[in-house]
Amino acid sequence: MTRVVNVAAAQLGPISRDETRTDVVARLLALLHAAAQRGAELVVFPELALTTFFPRWELADDELVAFFEREMPGPETKPLFDAAAMLGVGFHLGYAELTPDGHRYNTAILVERDGSVVAKYRKIHLPGHEEPEPWRPFQHLERAYFEPGPDAFAAHDAFGGRVGMAICNDRRWSETYRLLGLEGVELVCIGYNTPIHYPPDPDQDRLAGFHNHLVMASGAYQNGMWVAGVAKGGLEEGVEMLAESQIIAPSGEVVARCTTAGDEVIVAACDLDLCTHYRGTLFNFDRYRRPELYGPISERPRVQAKPPAPRREH
Amino acid sequence: MTRVVNVAAAQLGPISRDETRTDVVARLLALLHAAAQRGAELVVFPELALTTFFPRWELADDELVAFFEREMPGPETKPLFDAAAMLGVGFHLGYAELTPDGHRYNTAILVERDGSVVAKYRKIHLPGHEEPEPWRPFQHLERAYFEPGPDAFAAHDAFGGRVGMAICNDRRWSETYRLLGLEGVELVCIGYNTPIHYPPDPDQDRLAGFHNHLVMASGAYQNGMWVAGVAKGGLEEGVEMLAESQIIAPSGEVVARCTTAGDEVIVAACDLDLCTHYRGTLFNFDRYRRPELYGPISERPRVQAKPPAPRREH
Repeated sequence: MTRVVNVAAAQLGPISRDETRTDVVARLLALLHAAAQRGAELVVFPELALTTFFPRWELADDELVAFFEREMPGPETKPLFDAAAMLGVGFHLGYAELTPDGHRYNTAILVERDGSVVAKYRKIHLPGHEEPEPWRPFQHLERAYFEPGPDAFAAHDAFGGRVGMAICNDRRWSETYRLLGLEGVELVCIGYNTPIHYPPDPDQDRLAGFHNHLVMASGAYQNGMWVAGVAKGGLEEGVEMLAESQIIAPSGEVVARCTTAGDEVIVAACDLDLCTHYRGTLFNFDRYRRPELYGPISERPRVQAKPPAPRREH
Repeated sequence: MTRVVNVAAAQLGPISRDETRTDVVARLLALLHAAAQRGAELVVFPELALTTFFPRWELADDELVAFFEREMPGPETKPLFDAAAMLGVGFHLGYAELTPDGHRYNTAILVERDGSVVAKYRKIHLPGHEEPEPWRPFQHLERAYFEPGPDAFAAHDAFGGRVGMAICNDRRWSETYRLLGLEGVELVCIGYNTPIHYPPDPDQDRLAGFHNHLVMASGAYQNGMWVAGVAKGGLEEGVEMLAESQIIAPSGEVVARCTTAGDEVIVAACDLDLCTHYRGTLFNFDRYRRPELYGPISERPRVQAKPPAPRREH
């Protein structure tokens, strides 16, 4: 038994504020069909894939809720589920979720090849800020518009393996991959919306692509897992968004990579058995980790750094 | 006040089994002087820098103890401490430690610019195997010859900043950097001895340099710290050892890199204040981490993976 899963990264170019859900779903359907034609079994769409990246604006409550989904599938997204079942292609889709009791999350859903929902994930690591900051050229109000995901990272038996989900800023945190790795995840789907300009420290702008790759490649290697990182890229409502979607092997090697900043499909044959190369040798967690010394990672609420000592002269 | 520390990586070429400590210390002294001439304030030597990498052999007890230091400094290593104080150059040195009560550790020591000992670190993540495995072309018996370091990673006020230590295989584990980062470390010294051939999975051999860089660069970036990774490289007693010593900025960028597999000094001006760029923004641990969800990293003794489900046909 080989365990090769054909995974597609379905990158999206910019979505303008006035595009309707129906417009966007038509683009998703085109990508789904293109991926199916290339043999994909799982199509990974980006974070917040149904709308423009609205946290860039300060929004009134009624403006804000217009970007959220009250049900999944809903009337506008149902065609995607139907097409998936018809084609026998599963998918991973990010969207803004409004629950019946009024909670808002930055969410992704995993759908199997028969159109059934495997699991939902709510973004754990919310970046940005809580209050509007007028000095910024654009806002990043995720911490105002979403509640942090309350549930742990999880593994799901799907697509013949163990599949996990993470969203955007989650990918910068080593804990994300390690928690998924400890659950035995073999493939993690990560959608992202990353403005290339980072107002709090513009020195990082020129490194946006390097950092995006670095965190996903190291997370893949250090946990022996496949990573499918999928962007919404291009110039969206005046803000340049990082593209560079990529599929990364458990070796840390990029095996497929987008070369545009628009709607684009890449496909890779992901052999889930490659994970055991790393998990069974160098990264045999049972044998080599020292969890009894890792307590501060989960326990410590604050950095314990003292102020640096004055520089000694001599 | 700027906080630039001139850090040297003092890579060693191979050390043969018959080189004496005095021979090796003469090489270390030459590197120390060369680094001092180039303005270095801290010289980072590799792991087990006083001998050949002896865990490659199955050794009788009396053969084994000959590779260990009973005191630091001892008569043969004292000249290094004296030269450091004379030159006003501190150093980090890896060696095999035999304690008065008979414990053996893979250890590194940090010495300030006045020759005083700042701290000792005992390797936490021991790679390799516990028993000789005759099928291997060479052994990696660290788990037979050393006890795992019993103490947590720590930060030390030295060289005008917060300095940490890690050794070789520690650098592959994201927990190493995170624990040091939580302690406020701004510069971590890492010595290593890495055979390029990895007998349990030779498919990884071609990636040895890539992986070495990947784990140190991501550890630096994800924790906003400088990393000085220093090899013992070259063909040592028939085994090709990875060189590629490098100094990495908190951005993850390599700022200095060895280009030989022999004795070689590289120096970089490490501005410790760069760390705050990352720790104060994207990687503000207090603001953005979710330690309440990280419990399994420190608590869970075993991987919870279920066997993969049979592949569905449809």
